[in-house]
Amino acid sequence: MSTELPSDPEESPPAPRPAPREVWKKGGRLLSVLLAVNVLLLACTLISGGAFNKVAVYDTDVFALLTTMLLLALLWILFYLLGTARCPGGVPYRDAHAGPIWLRGGLVLFGICTLVMDVFKTGYYSSFLECQSAIKILYPLTQAVFVIVQTYFLWVSAKDCVHTHLDLTRCGLMFTLTTNLAIWMAAVVDESLHQAHSHSSSHSNTSHTRLALDLERASSAVGGECSCDTAVCQIFQQGYFYLYPFNIEYSLFASTMLYVMWKNVGRLLASSTHGHSHAPSPLSLFRETFFAGPVLGLMLFVVGLAVFIIYEVQVSGERGRTQQALVIYYSFNIVCLGLMTLVSLSGSVIYRFDRRAMDQHKNPTRTLDVALLMGAALGQYAISYYSIVAVVAGTPRDLLAALNLAHALLMIAQHTFQNVFIIESLHRGPPGAEPHNTAPKEPCHGLTFANLDALHTLPACPPTPRLVGPSPAGPQEASSVIVAPRSHWRRRCLKDISLFLLLCNIILWIMPAFGARPHFSNTVEVDFYGYSLWAAIVNICLPFGIFYRMHAVSSLLEVYVMS
Amino acid sequence: MSTELPSDPEESPPAPRPAPREVWKKGGRLLSVLLAVNVLLLACTLISGGAFNKVAVYDTDVFALLTTMLLLALLWILFYLLGTARCPGGVPYRDAHAGPIWLRGGLVLFGICTLVMDVFKTGYYSSFLECQSAIKILYPLTQAVFVIVQTYFLWVSAKDCVHTHLDLTRCGLMFTLTTNLAIWMAAVVDESLHQAHSHSSSHSNTSHTRLALDLERASSAVGGECSCDTAVCQIFQQGYFYLYPFNIEYSLFASTMLYVMWKNVGRLLASSTHGHSHAPSPLSLFRETFFAGPVLGLMLFVVGLAVFIIYEVQVSGERGRTQQALVIYYSFNIVCLGLMTLVSLSGSVIYRFDRRAMDQHKNPTRTLDVALLMGAALGQYAISYYSIVAVVAGTPRDLLAALNLAHALLMIAQHTFQNVFIIESLHRGPPGAEPHNTAPKEPCHGLTFANLDALHTLPACPPTPRLVGPSPAGPQEASSVIVAPRSHWRRRCLKDISLFLLLCNIILWIMPAFGARPHFSNTVEVDFYGYSLWAAIVNICLPFGIFYRMHAVSSLLEVYVMS
Repeated sequence: MSTELPSDPEESPPAPRPAPREVWKKGGRLLSVLLAVNVLLLACTLISGGAFNKVAVYDTDVFALLTTMLLLALLWILFYLLGTARCPGGVPYRDAHAGPIWLRGGLVLFGICTLVMDVFKTGYYSSFLECQSAIKILYPLTQAVFVIVQTYFLWVSAKDCVHTHLDLTRCGLMFTLTTNLAIWMAAVVDESLHQAHSHSSSHSNTSHTRLALDLERASSAVGGECSCDTAVCQIFQQGYFYLYPFNIEYSLFASTMLYVMWKNVGRLLASSTHGHSHAPSPLSLFRETFFAGPVLGLMLFVVGLAVFIIYEVQVSGERGRTQQALVIYYSFNIVCLGLMTLVSLSGSVIYRFDRRAMDQHKNPTRTLDVALLMGAALGQYAISYYSIVAVVAGTPRDLLAALNLAHALLMIAQHTFQNVFIIESLHRGPPGAEPHNTAPKEPCHGLTFANLDALHTLPACPPTPRLVGPSPAGPQEASSVIVAPRSHWRRRCLKDISLFLLLCNIILWIMPAFGARPHFSNTVEVDFYGYSLWAAIVNICLPFGIFYRMHAVSSLLEVYVMS
Repeated sequence: MSTELPSDPEESPPAPRPAPREVWKKGGRLLSVLLAVNVLLLACTLISGGAFNKVAVYDTDVFALLTTMLLLALLWILFYLLGTARCPGGVPYRDAHAGPIWLRGGLVLFGICTLVMDVFKTGYYSSFLECQSAIKILYPLTQAVFVIVQTYFLWVSAKDCVHTHLDLTRCGLMFTLTTNLAIWMAAVVDESLHQAHSHSSSHSNTSHTRLALDLERASSAVGGECSCDTAVCQIFQQGYFYLYPFNIEYSLFASTMLYVMWKNVGRLLASSTHGHSHAPSPLSLFRETFFAGPVLGLMLFVVGLAVFIIYEVQVSGERGRTQQALVIYYSFNIVCLGLMTLVSLSGSVIYRFDRRAMDQHKNPTRTLDVALLMGAALGQYAISYYSIVAVVAGTPRDLLAALNLAHALLMIAQHTFQNVFIIESLHRGPPGAEPHNTAPKEPCHGLTFANLDALHTLPACPPTPRLVGPSPAGPQEASSVIVAPRSHWRRRCLKDISLFLLLCNIILWIMPAFGARPHFSNTVEVDFYGYSLWAAIVNICLPFGIFYRMHAVSSLLEVYVMS
């Protein structure tokens, strides 16, 4: 949610007299940030107002605003694709770090899920067309068109460093970014209301009935006097709530890519070939690991899926089984988080012996990645600290409280050490960047040879150095054969570590994203803070926690490819 | 509240191979940021938990945590002053931009007020010593010692670029920063409770009595079974609540200075004399204006004070007079904000004709200043947008609603244009940096002469060019006498503008800081959002708004001196 400020004077090359264009860079940035802040605050006001049903802001107002924003952003994207991008000299440079393939791939994947969600939503609202405002059907349709156009736009233009229509492009990018964030906020609010609604229907005998009923009224107000009682309508309704996580991720993915494009507007790159990340051939991807990481990760993934299904089945049953489900859930999470903490720590230890140079080049994508990792972790940190205070100060000291405490503490440790590992990894150069202080300058990268004579007996620059097969080996060659894998051993370990962490992050993403809420099944925090306060804390912080997992997965994929 | 991330690769000089120290800079930063985030979240959890009296966190827990943090920070400061700073080569560079005199002066001023507050607090809690926990008296005493030591430390060391004990210094600075932020949070929460308490006592006939009574119980819980009924105790209690704004500002001032010190740890400066801001002689300070700015500003200041006093007196009376007080308050604010908007705009227009080069040097102080201006403005933006939605969607369309709407719109405009003006000003170089493209390179700065011959007849480099007195003037000299003030006219205007804005910001700071809350006297928003939601919005956002005014004043002072 932090608006980046147009305030870093390091942007400009440290030339004695920068060109006047640099002045305008700042002015344009300031202008577009101000535009974005104002639009975003207006959207935020309306969306949060619409969420409280005591407040006389109707959801049709929110839908109208969002539809208008979508249409305006659509207009600008079309202008960019047809006008700015086709200008001669409009896009002289392309930032090789921006829009990597997994980010664009994820965008397309989530975009498709969002389209399915839009179909479900349209179907749901069409079921009672006669007693609905037309804007409620118009909104998912507009969103579908927007998603298609924006995904194409980002796929094609994510790497662009635009140099024409500077101010217009900055404002357009910021406005599109704001639109995505507004959609994200609306989805988070909608999902929270739905969550509170399902909480109230399962716990309607508790004291929170009043608030829960309020929320129920709010979320069922979409029906007005008509109710959703046909089977098709029910399926549509259930379906679109399950697809919300994808819509949320889509908006965040698009936002990060738009932000990087915004940072790159008017940027001068030394040469367009600078910093091409080396693309490994897909065949060699899995040969470079010890298989321990992926195997262990996959095992945890499968066990985690089973635990998640057991949890979801049992928690909707009676009270005793909820208790049991929570014990299973927490135990699995404690094991998983403990292993991840240890593995991240060992990764950091390996880096202490790594001699690759730190990459100090300017790289807005990486800067943003690091900022997002640190910022998104705050959500889970906050939930954990509130849990710790509740457990330590609260009265019941049973098994569940102990598990909850261990879970919260490990969550903090895991986020911390994983962030340290990922950030350190992202700042390492590619394997070729290892400084050859002692070894002679050789085109064969990534190897330090103990025996210099042995160098010439090796095949010329093997793409992935490995044990040389059955060849006549003298005593000189033997030494190189022994020493070369020792350096390689580190890289393999790092690849194993990143794959293991990646798989663990996926399963830890699936659980909350598809509706596991031990925060509410477990009564410790609800009793300590009261339902409304605790719901506010969880509903604000958990989306960041979920986003953290997604983002960690994409960063770990980058670490895996780069190490 | 944004934790700065250790992610800007622009830090390092663009040398082909930076020294290994640069690697450690990032590691140390990451470590200290993680420490700060964790401590801050723990403090945040306890403080927010303590604020809700349904939650079983007692204020003694909060006081114990804060006292521990104060003592630890104190220990580190003493270690720094006696150890690190005295190391040979420990502080090789000093950042000339950091800790300018007005910031340090403000720190001392607010520090003294905080000390007075601590005396009042100690007196208040001593009044019922027998039925209080000892920690409640220990806390203000520890705070007083901390304020004295920290103020001395920042006065002496604000400009230091430390180069020994790097990691320890970073962690120490971040921990001290966190301590200040925790004190700030505790003060804001305490003040909000007090505000809600006084609201409840003046509006106890409304429907919000339940919540208000809850809050009253919470804030009067400090007394336990003892009550504060002696005259001295009452004075102490009233006094320390009036001094809270100063404590809040002290913590924020100290935080910004600590942050700049943290950014400067391990920084290499080209030379220690680089960037010395030119210090104008105090005598010439006021001669360089047209007096229109300061005079108009002072008039508004005096009128504002009168309006504030009338408002405070009338609003505590019956309902009809509250209405009248609000009309006066809003009218004054609308006039003041309108004038400020126009003046900021004209300042920006003047810059369009200014030919001074933009200063593109790296300057953490300025980067932070800009970020704080933009970030703190968000608080007032948010309040304004919520007001606008309430007024537009709400039912009553009377004079007060119209005034409220105009006030909110002008508030947004004023913050926007003032920020644009200040940010543009801060990025201008000092007057000497004007590029002499057409004029010959002369040591006499800031002047462009139409008649080159006239140059030699002027006295050598006058410190402030002015009309030459009764001296025998030929036709050549006359032209220089006419043209020289034309260039000077812009600088005078800018000085007038900054002084005017400065005085207006002071009066707009005084009003909310000393308790004017039209947000609650005016019933539009309270009725629209409900008391608790609106109180949450205002109590979270208004401290940022108040800080914005303070910060704008210090930035405008810098603009005044530099232009």
